Amino acid sequence: MTAPLLTEIDHVAIAVNDLDSAIEYYEQTFGAVLAHRERVETDGVEEALLKVADSYIQLLTPIRDDSTVAKFLEKEGEGLHHVGYRVDDCATALQSVKDHGGRVIDQVPRPGSRGTTVAFVHPKGAFGTLIELVEE
Amino acid sequence: MTAPLLTEIDHVAIAVNDLDSAIEYYEQTFGAVLAHRERVETDGVEEALLKVADSYIQLLTPIRDDSTVAKFLEKEGEGLHHVGYRVDDCATALQSVKDHGGRVIDQVPRPGSRGTTVAFVHPKGAFGTLIELVEE
Repeated sequence: MTAPLLTEIDHVAIAVNDLDSAIEYYEQTFGAVLAHRERVETDGVEEALLKVADSYIQLLTPIRDDSTVAKFLEKEGEGLHHVGYRVDDCATALQSVKDHGGRVIDQVPRPGSRGTTVAFVHPKGAFGTLIELVEE
Repeated sequence: MTAPLLTEIDHVAIAVNDLDSAIEYYEQTFGAVLAHRERVETDGVEEALLKVADSYIQLLTPIRDDSTVAKFLEKEGEGLHHVGYRVDDCATALQSVKDHGGRVIDQVPRPGSRGTTVAFVHPKGAFGTLIELVEE
């Protein structure tokens, strides 16, 4: 048996074309509160986090044409992009993925937004879902 | 200002071809615990809920060829299907969507799985995301 590694749904990530309009949608329709906004240069995105209990709605928009989110929007259009799960230790969770035959995008944990440590798991080998492991 | 309506990410829903294999993936790789399993005849799906803190990973597989999840799998393949947000009152949240110009799939709340009351918001008008409002 594997010990429980996922301690929270950290965020659902949604790719959008216009970050301000999408923030406004969640604020006005659902009264969601903007908690954080950051340009993540390494990933080529600007993100906005709207707080829902101890989780976030993460809105993502590309800041460069060659970012993976730009390519996603071009191919798929706006919508759900990935899901982030909070873990106590990113390296341990990533190793468990490798040990159980999963494919990883990040071979080792790396810095994420808002000071987190993150690693992405490849959707191939994860039933089509791009998974981010997030250590706060 | 709209009062905060979303009290929790209730679930992230993932469409899969083989429910048992997908459950096994989350159990073995991440130590996630199966909390509930149900055939929802009206939606033409079988669902499995794996508990993550106060939220769920909802795995969905079609039980009929004409279910929307069967069509999704055929067109998009396995992956993220929708996100469910917990609300105190489904009718109030649904009305807020209508009041703010959103499109709804369910005009009025209806029974969901595990005794919940739910309504779906159309992705057109919600930045490409199929949203489910879930009242426990």
